[in-house]
Amino acid sequence: MTNQYVHGYSHRESERLADQARTLTELLHHDTRYPPGSRVLEAGCGVGAQTAILAKNCPGALITSVDISAKSLKKAEENIRSQGYTNVTFRQADIFSLPFAQASFDHIFVCFVLEHLPDPRRALENLLPFLKEGGTITVIEGDHGSAYFHPDNADARRAIDCLAELQRRGGGNALIGRQLYPLVSAAGFRDVRVSPRMVYADSSRPELVEGFTNLTFTAMVEGVGREATGHGLITEEAWNRGIAALYRTAEQDGVFCYTFFKAVGRR
Amino acid sequence: MTNQYVHGYSHRESERLADQARTLTELLHHDTRYPPGSRVLEAGCGVGAQTAILAKNCPGALITSVDISAKSLKKAEENIRSQGYTNVTFRQADIFSLPFAQASFDHIFVCFVLEHLPDPRRALENLLPFLKEGGTITVIEGDHGSAYFHPDNADARRAIDCLAELQRRGGGNALIGRQLYPLVSAAGFRDVRVSPRMVYADSSRPELVEGFTNLTFTAMVEGVGREATGHGLITEEAWNRGIAALYRTAEQDGVFCYTFFKAVGRR
Repeated sequence: MTNQYVHGYSHRESERLADQARTLTELLHHDTRYPPGSRVLEAGCGVGAQTAILAKNCPGALITSVDISAKSLKKAEENIRSQGYTNVTFRQADIFSLPFAQASFDHIFVCFVLEHLPDPRRALENLLPFLKEGGTITVIEGDHGSAYFHPDNADARRAIDCLAELQRRGGGNALIGRQLYPLVSAAGFRDVRVSPRMVYADSSRPELVEGFTNLTFTAMVEGVGREATGHGLITEEAWNRGIAALYRTAEQDGVFCYTFFKAVGRR
Repeated sequence: MTNQYVHGYSHRESERLADQARTLTELLHHDTRYPPGSRVLEAGCGVGAQTAILAKNCPGALITSVDISAKSLKKAEENIRSQGYTNVTFRQADIFSLPFAQASFDHIFVCFVLEHLPDPRRALENLLPFLKEGGTITVIEGDHGSAYFHPDNADARRAIDCLAELQRRGGGNALIGRQLYPLVSAAGFRDVRVSPRMVYADSSRPELVEGFTNLTFTAMVEGVGREATGHGLITEEAWNRGIAALYRTAEQDGVFCYTFFKAVGRR
């Protein structure tokens, strides 16, 4: 899940966003702490949003972050270097043909990657041999079908369904979060434990309402409007009503719920 | 939410159910502990399922449990007496005309009641004066729209929608959980905080799969089948497919999610 919607923020808005990012980081990552000296593979680091969190939370770990895109990797490396972290090595690589010896890593970390892959199980099966016996894999994904809200609204639900349908047509799966347990288990990992991480936003939590409901989730849905109407998945009128209804959930008496899923398995 | 579906259980099944009840009790009630000497009103105790938990968790509190139904109240009293609790007083009363002096209680507890009322806000407004200045109200409700599962299934979703529609026609609201923040706030309570309590069941948690997915949620939906098809809300074929799909989520590779909401506010 990426935030594709960037305003010119005031200072106060920037602070709120930073609060939101901290809250979400804590929710998803507080219990991922790899010990000093452990070798960690981050598979699919993208532009390094999670890499920075790993590097910070696990200062003594030796992190190797790979991505298939040289362009993303360059950005990730600049991001990490600019923050002064020295515990990350970057390498351009495809998850399906990794340039490492088998059993090279104590831990593997895969965050917001599987949702984009046509065959996420095969990706996990390909990662398994690179883990040492007893090592862990951590997988984190969202689930767009976990979104519900007050006031409820049929057009808003349809707009979210359009996003999921577009992701499906692109070979991905927007409902993958709830599937992590069977997916990671079927790929051959054992002792799989999944814990849901629910984001709950009402007006007593303004940093989440602004940072998550508006600027992360609704902005993400809004970002595919042209594509959704262009493919005839929904009329422009229904789309606009749906987006307005999503923003409506961020008002004083609104509520928004969304759940991420975190799975940990063992080789 | 009541479990309307009772098999003849084997001993092992009984133990599983007891495990599930403990898990759910812990999830919903672990942080409701009223101190010794405090006066607690349980508004709408029904047959006493929550009364027993309150009585156990708050041994020194003076609990008054009311319900509008004399029949339910009698069952609740028998239930509590048979378990040996002596800290509960029962009284037949209507939430909308309570026979108590104003500011009689330190705490009010309302669990699985508002979902059945045509005007839940007015019910909360009516409770407010019976609370001492600074006292708390605790409200717990489920939300049937928070249910999602793997494998996903359109007929299963329709079956759940039928249950919600029947509850709506009966004057209730099956989606009330997500609305607790605006509802409790609008009724005049302050410092309202809502915390979602998500039930996540996959086959690594067999006591929840059996006790919650099958015997609580799916059995509850299944229980309104005749009414749903009788009112023409759904065909019998679609209904049967939906129920089968809900049971399917309890298989080895299935996942089931549901969320309760707990709100605490202050006078």
